[in-house]
Parts: sequence; C-alpha cells; structure tokens
Amino acid sequence: MSGVFLFTDFGLEGPYVGQMKAALLARAPRAPVVDLMHDAPAFRPREAGYLLAALLPHLPADAVVVAVVDPGVGGARAALCARAGTGWLVGPDNGLLAPALRSAPDAEMFRLSVPADASMSFHGRDVFAPAAASLAAAGVPPDGAAAVPDWVGRDWPATWSQVIYIDRYGNAMTGLPAAALPADAGPRLAGRVLERARTFDDVSPGTAFWYENSIGLAEIAANQCSAAAMFGLAVGDPVAFEGPAK
Amino acid sequence: MSGVFLFTDFGLEGPYVGQMKAALLARAPRAPVVDLMHDAPAFRPREAGYLLAALLPHLPADAVVVAVVDPGVGGARAALCARAGTGWLVGPDNGLLAPALRSAPDAEMFRLSVPADASMSFHGRDVFAPAAASLAAAGVPPDGAAAVPDWVGRDWPATWSQVIYIDRYGNAMTGLPAAALPADAGPRLAGRVLERARTFDDVSPGTAFWYENSIGLAEIAANQCSAAAMFGLAVGDPVAFEGPAK
Amino acid sequence: MSGVFLFTDFGLEGPYVGQMKAALLARAPRAPVVDLMHDAPAFRPREAGYLLAALLPHLPADAVVVAVVDPGVGGARAALCARAGTGWLVGPDNGLLAPALRSAPDAEMFRLSVPADASMSFHGRDVFAPAAASLAAAGVPPDGAAAVPDWVGRDWPATWSQVIYIDRYGNAMTGLPAAALPADAGPRLAGRVLERARTFDDVSPGTAFWYENSIGLAEIAANQCSAAAMFGLAVGDPVAFEGPAK
Repeated sequence: MSGVFLFTDFGLEGPYVGQMKAALLARAPRAPVVDLMHDAPAFRPREAGYLLAALLPHLPADAVVVAVVDPGVGGARAALCARAGTGWLVGPDNGLLAPALRSAPDAEMFRLSVPADASMSFHGRDVFAPAAASLAAAGVPPDGAAAVPDWVGRDWPATWSQVIYIDRYGNAMTGLPAAALPADAGPRLAGRVLERARTFDDVSPGTAFWYENSIGLAEIAANQCSAAAMFGLAVGDPVAFEGPAK
Repeated sequence: MSGVFLFTDFGLEGPYVGQMKAALLARAPRAPVVDLMHDAPAFRPREAGYLLAALLPHLPADAVVVAVVDPGVGGARAALCARAGTGWLVGPDNGLLAPALRSAPDAEMFRLSVPADASMSFHGRDVFAPAAASLAAAGVPPDGAAAVPDWVGRDWPATWSQVIYIDRYGNAMTGLPAAALPADAGPRLAGRVLERARTFDDVSPGTAFWYENSIGLAEIAANQCSAAAMFGLAVGDPVAFEGPAK
Repeated sequence: MSGVFLFTDFGLEGPYVGQMKAALLARAPRAPVVDLMHDAPAFRPREAGYLLAALLPHLPADAVVVAVVDPGVGGARAALCARAGTGWLVGPDNGLLAPALRSAPDAEMFRLSVPADASMSFHGRDVFAPAAASLAAAGVPPDGAAAVPDWVGRDWPATWSQVIYIDRYGNAMTGLPAAALPADAGPRLAGRVLERARTFDDVSPGTAFWYENSIGLAEIAANQCSAAAMFGLAVGDPVAFEGPAK
C-alpha cells in the first residue's frame, strides 16, 4: 500500500487538510497519509513545482503525492495525475507537477474527470484526494481518467533562478541545484557575492552564506539570523550566481 | 476499524494534541487518527457546534469524532458520547455536539464516567480520547457510560445566523446552510446587501460577495481580500440575510 | 509494532517534519507516527529534556520517541539511542534525552553511526528517523550502533527550577514536579508569592496562580490571561518556590 503525501498551500488552519484526509480514509482506509508540507508557496505553482521536484527524491519511490497550489480552482484548468516511475503525482494542470516530471522521462499523464457534484472551491477534497485514493489502493488512475500528451510547464527549464521558498528561520531556498553550481560562485546580494559554506556552524553568528541544503538546493542563509530579512528576499525574487565570491 | 477525527480549539502548538493521540494509540492501536481541525472557535461551543455539524457529512459515515471546545473542563459539566447513525460523537455537554445530532433523529446519548485520576485540566486526553478509543476499537461506549435523555443544546435551532468561523484568508463562514437561502438574498454589511456568486473567480479582485462554501454554508468572502477585515467581522457577529441584493 | 513519537523544535512549517515521516514510512511502513510536539524549546536541549521527561509517562510504554532539539547538528556531538524500559529514545547527545533516562535505572545507551551521505543539516531525516524505524520495526538498534557508558546530562539534577515551556495561552511550565512541592509554597514573582489552585476555574479572571498541570509539573498560570506576559516570563527564567504563599 503506497503512502499518500500531501503538498499544499492550505496552511494547517481550518478544516481543509482534515477533509482531504477524510476523503482519503473513506476510499483507501489502509493508506498511510503524510503531511509533506502545507505552506508551499501560496498561489505560485511554478515556485512550488520546483520545490516539489527537489523533495521528491526524499520520498518513498512508490509515493502518491497530492499537490495542490491551485489559484485556478473551479475554472478551466484541467485536473491531472501523472505516473513517474513507480510513484504518482496528482494535481492541477498549472505547472505544479511539471518540474518533478522532468526526471521521469517515461512519465504518463492523465486528465481526471471532475464529478458533477464536486465543490467549485475545493477540488483537493473532491477531485485530487479521491484520485490519490484510487492510485494508492488500486495502483491505477481513477475511472474516467484519459491519457493526455501535454501539460503546462512541460517546456520549463530544469532549474529556476529564483527564491522558491523561505522557511521560518528566514533561510531562502533557490530553484538551483547546488551540485550544478561552481563551488567558488555565489549569489550577488546587496552588492557582494556570498561565499559558500558547508553548514551554519562554519560561519560566525550574523554572517550570511550559501550552502547545499538537505534537498540539494542552493540556499541563502545566515547563522542565527534571517537571511530573508537581511537582504529583503521574497519568494519569486531572481537570484544570480556569480563568481568567484570574494 | 473506524477512523477517529479530532476537532478541538487546542491549536497545534504544545503537547496537547500529541498526548490525545498517544492515549488513542495505546488503546486502539489500529484506528487511523485524523486532525479534522484544531482551530475550532475557541471557548465557543455553540459556534463550534454548528461548524462541526456542517463538516460531519464530509466524514466517513462510521467516523468517531472527538470534539473538545470545553471552557468548563474540570467543572460540573458532563462528558458525553452520542451515537448518530453508524458514527459516534464524543465531547463535553455544553452544546458542542448538539447541532450535529439534529440530523440524527435516532441519536442515543451516554454520559461518560470520569476516572478518579483524570487531570482536571485535560479531559481530552483522560476522558474523551479513551472513550473514542473504545468506540473505534469495540464499537460500544466505554464501561460506565450511562444513557441520558437530554443534553445542552437539544433545543437549539437548526441554523445559526452568526459568523461561526473565520479562516486564515478572512473568509467568514456563517451557520446558515446556503441551500435554505433565496438565491437573490444576501447579508447586509456596511449598509449594503452582498450579492451571491458561484466562486471567487466570478467577481473582480477586491469585490465582496457570498457563496455556498465547500461544506454547504453561506460564506462571506472577497476575491483576494479579507472579508473579515473589510467588514470588521468576528466570530459571534450576527448575520442577517435580506433580499433581493442590489 | 511500536508507535513513533516526534518531539522537535522544527515547527510545523516547511518540509522538515514531512521528510522525517517519509524516512520512517520507507523503513517501517506499519509503524504509527504521532506528532508529540514540534515547538519544543528551540535550541534549548536542557529545558526540552525536562519537558520530554514529564511527557514520557503519558506515552505508550513501548513508544519510540525521536527527539530533535539539536543546535549542534553537523558538528561533533554524537547521535544516540537509549533503551528505557520497553521503550526507546533517539536523539542527539546534548542532554535532551538525559532527564527522561533518570527514571529508567537500567537504561542502555548506544551511539549511532552516521551515514557518509547524511545531510549535514538534517540528521532528523538521515540519522534519527532511520534509527527510530529500526527500533519500531525490529526492536533493536540499527546496524553500527555501539553501547556507550556515558552521555551529556547524566549528572543533571532530577528537577529543574526554571521555566521550561510557555504555551500559546501564556501558561509557563516549570521543570518542578508539583508533587514534590509543599502545598502552601509558591513561586515568587513580581514581589509576591503565588498561591496554589486546583485549576483555572478556582480563581477569578485575571488572577495568577500555580497548579499541577496535566503532566505533573508546577505551572504558572492566570485565568483568562497570559501569565507569561503578566510577569515577563521566558523559557530559561529561574523559578524559586517559597512559602507559605500569602
């Protein structure tokens, strides 16, 4: 039985995540359900998509991921599920799933049918969770799903030179895998190029640096300080690496 | 094995929800436990009760719901569990369970015994969770439960013309099922009557409206704005629908 | 199958707790995982340790507790797991586990090996969660664990005369078990000695008092007010009980 991982911008307040879990439990009672995160970049499917792509290698290979960052809910955008290796992704056709599919060259995409009685404002409960339950319990897309050849974001680049997430400590993740960056390069911020460190303890308190974070992304951080506050960073800000740092 | 759903005003901070789950796990290790919500209207069993009633149809029919909005914990109020169809509700006798029982005409109510060593400040862990574990695992009220003929809120109305919940976006749920309201009526706020829309995308940014939300309630909202801030709304505020809107 | 309880200072934001759960699910798919709390005193293993010790009696006896308050992650501190009765504790060697082990005189301590590919900043996912999965699924420490005779905090006192946690209502828990305090003593704050009450309802609104909280600790509280705000309390503040209160 595959685990179901929830990745949304719903926050943990309110009865929204709980109702998604109720919909999963009613249809796939033995599937474990994990809150991957519920503070994905709000209303920003592109940044959220690059974040999800970096998280995916740290989930079980057969994970069913329900991703909902969906400002167009109730409108014309399609609802999708995608097979990627032995796992599945479920979410709206707004690019959110696209970066994660780049590393799954044999990805298959399906368009989900939307029940006539689905709430216009809550496809997480009425469309995506039921599809995920079908995938977790039966391993196949739900009835009515039809293969589609294309999706939003299929042509997006492999990396994204922007801030894609800021955590509660003010560390700013970028959409740039650290392994692809020269070790002596750094992001230019406030007129200087930050140096690379291995981890927080390598620099003195108050010092900003960048490092390869635990999901392989270049992250702008500061020891015991908020790098986001220090440099005025927000999700969506462009990040340019230059080098060598000095 | 029925799922257990937690509906409290504890918030997610602190060791309170975790200890309720520990108490459930120790007694019903195979029952799935779902956080339905932990930001139910704090100290307001009536508003929380109407919210719970609207959520119940979106849970599995055999759900065991533990509801704790309990300003009188440790005092004289009774602890209850109620059979409603194939599901159960567990919580304090302060009206919290009452609105949900209106649609279960064959509801049976039981008064729970309180162990002598129960904490005076944490019946969620020591009274309600153990009762829920018994219901989830064995399908019967715990030892010592005794049928009672009446409970607080049994005479409350079917709907509640107040704001019962404000979500983190500032949308204000009312205790009024939308299906019972004339389509051309609306709530009078700041000197005008709001129009009804199907969903957020139907109005321009900044525009306030009301709509049937995903749990069937009339909700006061605004596209990309906080309706609560716009109109100074708080939980408990009266809401009067008038019509036609104009 | 033992349940795994997570006790961290990660907060619930971000993809951190979710990845720990992914690591657990991949290795011990049938172990229930419970969020005990994720707002343990940040960067304060000592205060967090006394809090964990008070919570432990309220968990199942065979619980596997993963505790991560770990400012030294990536540095020289060892990673540990400890057998305490039929349960296990997993966490860094910085004192966090020590107070809980005082009541387990036959505690056995093991040093965990750290995989070469472990992230320097996220041992919760790469070291502690895998160890907990091994303990929950197989009941034995993971391969490479070696018994050690000593650990940080082994010589710490049985109680801790400081504020160790402040909850969202402003109630301030101390590291002092209430049962060991004279009933007529109280903490001296703002020039007076607070009286003891049984629970919040016993005092009038706005009145400060202390009481035995639901995990047996002396807690400084006020009815419908924040005691922390009233007395300017913060985690780590010393608390001196004197008596008799008047």
